[in-house]
Amino acid sequence: MSSTAGQVIRCKAAVAWEAGKPLVIEEVEVAPPQKNEVRVKILYTSLCHTDVYFWEAKGQNPLFPRIYGHEAGGIVESVGEGVTDLAPGDHVLPVFTGECKECAHCQSEESNMCSLLRINTDRGVMLNDGQSRFSINGKPIYHFVGTSTFSEYTVIHVGCLAKINPLAPLDKVCVLSCGISTGLGATLNVAKPPKGSTVAVFGLGAVGLAAAEGARIAGASRIIGVDLNPKRFEEAKKFGCTEFVNPMDHEKPVQEVLAEMTDGGVDRSVECTGNINAMISAFECVHDGWGVAVLVGVPHKDATFKTHPMNLLNERTLKGTFFGNYKPRSDLPSVVEKYMNKELEVEKFITHQVPFSEINKAFDYMLKGEGLRCIIRMDG
Amino acid sequence: MSSTAGQVIRCKAAVAWEAGKPLVIEEVEVAPPQKNEVRVKILYTSLCHTDVYFWEAKGQNPLFPRIYGHEAGGIVESVGEGVTDLAPGDHVLPVFTGECKECAHCQSEESNMCSLLRINTDRGVMLNDGQSRFSINGKPIYHFVGTSTFSEYTVIHVGCLAKINPLAPLDKVCVLSCGISTGLGATLNVAKPPKGSTVAVFGLGAVGLAAAEGARIAGASRIIGVDLNPKRFEEAKKFGCTEFVNPMDHEKPVQEVLAEMTDGGVDRSVECTGNINAMISAFECVHDGWGVAVLVGVPHKDATFKTHPMNLLNERTLKGTFFGNYKPRSDLPSVVEKYMNKELEVEKFITHQVPFSEINKAFDYMLKGEGLRCIIRMDG
Repeated sequence: MSSTAGQVIRCKAAVAWEAGKPLVIEEVEVAPPQKNEVRVKILYTSLCHTDVYFWEAKGQNPLFPRIYGHEAGGIVESVGEGVTDLAPGDHVLPVFTGECKECAHCQSEESNMCSLLRINTDRGVMLNDGQSRFSINGKPIYHFVGTSTFSEYTVIHVGCLAKINPLAPLDKVCVLSCGISTGLGATLNVAKPPKGSTVAVFGLGAVGLAAAEGARIAGASRIIGVDLNPKRFEEAKKFGCTEFVNPMDHEKPVQEVLAEMTDGGVDRSVECTGNINAMISAFECVHDGWGVAVLVGVPHKDATFKTHPMNLLNERTLKGTFFGNYKPRSDLPSVVEKYMNKELEVEKFITHQVPFSEINKAFDYMLKGEGLRCIIRMDG
Repeated sequence: MSSTAGQVIRCKAAVAWEAGKPLVIEEVEVAPPQKNEVRVKILYTSLCHTDVYFWEAKGQNPLFPRIYGHEAGGIVESVGEGVTDLAPGDHVLPVFTGECKECAHCQSEESNMCSLLRINTDRGVMLNDGQSRFSINGKPIYHFVGTSTFSEYTVIHVGCLAKINPLAPLDKVCVLSCGISTGLGATLNVAKPPKGSTVAVFGLGAVGLAAAEGARIAGASRIIGVDLNPKRFEEAKKFGCTEFVNPMDHEKPVQEVLAEMTDGGVDRSVECTGNINAMISAFECVHDGWGVAVLVGVPHKDATFKTHPMNLLNERTLKGTFFGNYKPRSDLPSVVEKYMNKELEVEKFITHQVPFSEINKAFDYMLKGEGLRCIIRMDG
């Protein structure tokens, strides 16, 4: 039992006081975990677009002050009542969505959209008592997607923690707790390209490159990257992309360009931009008879997906996925093992590193579109 | 070897001379089969909506005079050059789409949309020489979808003939060559409802009832029939439907009604009307996380399928199917076996019978919406 168990912990956290303003490293108080909660010492965290999106809080109901962060790796410090799956010292990946193991979704083999712990970006408090575990001088600081990993210690529902191999280096596998698994799982779990098939990936950011990495692992023979930014193409080669299409280089719709390149269409496509036109192209570029398109990118709330129904009748399949269809607790440990046995290459996603004291640099890199993942070392 | 092999056969056929005008039983000449063709003596044929649709020829390029008919059962009379799979005396079901066994679609395990022999409603001639095998006084009478079964003898590409168990009664299994297999396969091959699941079927005509029959065979626990015509509901019970929804009885969209009945959505839906709004409802009524919607009905050429992409992102699957994803030659024999071993009940689809001389009565029944399938006995 850690000496801090049951006590309030005072530690450093990067607090967002206002939308779009640089985070401030503050000393916060972190209350002990309550029923079904776990307090985790975060060792490494990385920055994902979703953090930036909700930090900018454009067109949203802002909830400040708040502690962002949801891609991370850490070690259990103490557990609350009823937690039997985890014990102090366990290595864990926090996940922005959960797995209660009891609801209809958790009981279904096909779904990972847990009714109890599904991502909720509006909620800034813990489920058990509707309160925050973070405070400064008694004033609450809100949680973000149940993880708030931009803090040396954080409190997380046990259902949002994947217990992983303690030999896995947390400074590498921390990136598997969101974006990389999302793209990888979209290909491996949902698109399921047969060996030797042709896969198109729309959007070559971290998620799209992880989708390409999934196609490489699956043994696809052609992996066609589609992006408006040709600078992405050179890097994408490391992730298995064999060809590139920039829709801006063509007068005709990109789905027609892809169909011409592939004798009628690709076998699988994975859409990682969230742009509605890219979604439609990603669907319409798959081959009739057997093509499967998988949507990953989150669309604008007013977007409408439109296509001629004959595109469906001609035996195309259109699917969406959330977190790569991985169930956080059941499936993430095996993704870590894929890295451990060198099937999955994680290092190439990690392009930057900063100490915690310079966390705002990670935001700058992302806002400038520089690199893929920036690891934030909590001890720095 | 039949004494008629290699000879022109004179026989009776029901000729459509003009769009929408009653068929006329005429004596026609049926030329011998050419390369990869087979001449078949039709014993029973039944009438499907597709015959009526192209006979009415509204808004289409009309092709007359023509011999319709594509649901049928018969016996091989003679075979042309290169035909090795079939021999005189074999029992066959003609199919409106084919399986060449050589193209990319036939080689794919997932597709049945043969590139060579895919349904073509505009072509009225045989592939081998671009000519018709039917004539009256030397004037060609056009084929329909490669089958033209409203004739005592017809010539069909070998790739459009399924060789079936000779013990199967052709006056029953003839209905398996189009609509019934289309609906059945949509459920069994594409929607694949798990045992105990909930299935919604949109449209309770012959195809929709066959989809319900598939759900019954798969062991679905609830089968919800959706139709604008409440008269269909009583009959639908025979096909396993346990509940009924008439969208006209509700103010709210039928997808919301179904979601309320099923705690969030059905597990599977099968759309058999072709109406674009029904298609959208059929998709949006499936449960997030695992729901699969399968489109069967053929839409209007100007229809647009529209939905919010979040409906997809929330892990719903949208698929279309053609002929229930059955490969005609490889798979139809096993559908016949399902009937032979009493798994599939075919008799309940057969509501009328007429002799060939009264074939126009079959059109009347269908135009009035009476019954499901009318068998036409060619010897009558």
